Amino acid sequence: MTNLAVIGPGLLGASIAMAAKRAGNFRVSIWARRETAVSELQTRGIGDFASTDLRKTSENADLAILCVPIGAMPSLGRQLAAILHPGALVTDVGSVKGSVVAELNAIFTGGVRFVGSHPMAGSEQTGMGFARADLFDEQVCIVTPDPTSQAQDIERVSSFWKNLGCRVRQLGPDEHDEIVAMISHFPHLLAAALVDSVCARSPAALDFAGPGFRDTTRVASGPPEMWSEILGVNRLAVKKSAEAMIEKLQEIMTLLDRPYPGGADSMNQFLTSAKTQRDRLQFRA
Amino acid sequence: MTNLAVIGPGLLGASIAMAAKRAGNFRVSIWARRETAVSELQTRGIGDFASTDLRKTSENADLAILCVPIGAMPSLGRQLAAILHPGALVTDVGSVKGSVVAELNAIFTGGVRFVGSHPMAGSEQTGMGFARADLFDEQVCIVTPDPTSQAQDIERVSSFWKNLGCRVRQLGPDEHDEIVAMISHFPHLLAAALVDSVCARSPAALDFAGPGFRDTTRVASGPPEMWSEILGVNRLAVKKSAEAMIEKLQEIMTLLDRPYPGGADSMNQFLTSAKTQRDRLQFRA
Repeated sequence: MTNLAVIGPGLLGASIAMAAKRAGNFRVSIWARRETAVSELQTRGIGDFASTDLRKTSENADLAILCVPIGAMPSLGRQLAAILHPGALVTDVGSVKGSVVAELNAIFTGGVRFVGSHPMAGSEQTGMGFARADLFDEQVCIVTPDPTSQAQDIERVSSFWKNLGCRVRQLGPDEHDEIVAMISHFPHLLAAALVDSVCARSPAALDFAGPGFRDTTRVASGPPEMWSEILGVNRLAVKKSAEAMIEKLQEIMTLLDRPYPGGADSMNQFLTSAKTQRDRLQFRA
Repeated sequence: MTNLAVIGPGLLGASIAMAAKRAGNFRVSIWARRETAVSELQTRGIGDFASTDLRKTSENADLAILCVPIGAMPSLGRQLAAILHPGALVTDVGSVKGSVVAELNAIFTGGVRFVGSHPMAGSEQTGMGFARADLFDEQVCIVTPDPTSQAQDIERVSSFWKNLGCRVRQLGPDEHDEIVAMISHFPHLLAAALVDSVCARSPAALDFAGPGFRDTTRVASGPPEMWSEILGVNRLAVKKSAEAMIEKLQEIMTLLDRPYPGGADSMNQFLTSAKTQRDRLQFRA
């Protein structure tokens, strides 16, 4: 039996609790900042125990997972470091790793250790009302050890996510931030920019949108506060993605300049190449 | 009983046939270019009759729907004009309207008349294997009359799509092309550009992608030949969207330049505004 402390009762925290109970062999305690969230967890029957008292939820934990906004992690981390028993392991679900991992590593230097992780799950929806035990099934979880990480800790964190249904991958914290800027942070900004750009030109245009536009822009319905924090912390990598995209769009506009039908050949080549690459994602859950 | 001729057995044509049979009161004939498609329609039990002979599928039609690539429409339109009986109505499902409507209107000047339409349905999948009777449920269909269109023809075409489950809207052909460039044609190109841009920078990055990236880029798995034709024909409107997007991205990069955490406020405002606009799409089918 593993004692699991989930720190934060949002979509990810509550889904982790549910997925751990589904996996079996976990006792799950959940910390929430607000009493109303504790009551809601109890009403929904999520986890075995919930409290606003960090000591009560965490003192027996073998594994604690920070599921709070990245800005709240250091302060909660420091409190956890004083509560957890030696040998306990801490991980997180933050979308940015470089600075966050460095800060948390500096906190967990004693018998309690830290290895970062980032499950590529979640959705534009927020709150435990949307939590699902199968949220992590077949999704990638990126574990982000750094040179100070110990092999057995990396292994424990990786096993945990596999147990929840994830396909586990490893990246260094900085490499993680570069890659996730490309496939998550910047695409989020791009979806918001597309909505904004369309509405600025024709406020009524959205009334005509089909399922394509709905999917392309889905992430833009995500929580703005969480995303502005992520984009701010990882802004250098996000800027590189934005610059690459502007260049790519300028390049594509030259394809549009070639008169149709002749120009259709180069456009066809470009779209075929993009389709081939994107089809790699097609048959994943 | 309405005799419906569906010209083309792809995802849209086959779905129209199935939706019409579900609606009842239709006899559905389907024309296909290839005998193998005719056999497949028969095996799948789609429609009442299928043939490669345009006369056999269309001579009794009250309504004929062109469900072929836009480049193939004028030639099939001319053949249909010689086959259909006076009073028959023709429409289409093409994604571009301005030039296509003009060309088809020039063909259907006698007793057979034309009113364009564009159901905002479909997906990245192609072929009758993915056809569904409910493909049009709650989706927008844009009917595109021009000044030569007659009120009763617009009404007949609109009723037909409502009968299939659509929410019908009207736009002039050119207005259609401007708006659909914003919400469909350019977003398609943008999704392809995002995939291409990421893969050019880091071919392995896609292995880490989550459901957000998968949805944002879904349309990029659509048929390249069809899309390069659409983008070529509507390239002036698509270019305007691309230019607006480049400008928007440059504007957003100035938000990223403001140091975090102060800059997070303006980013938060931007994301909140985009979310509010995008949430209008949230609760539609």
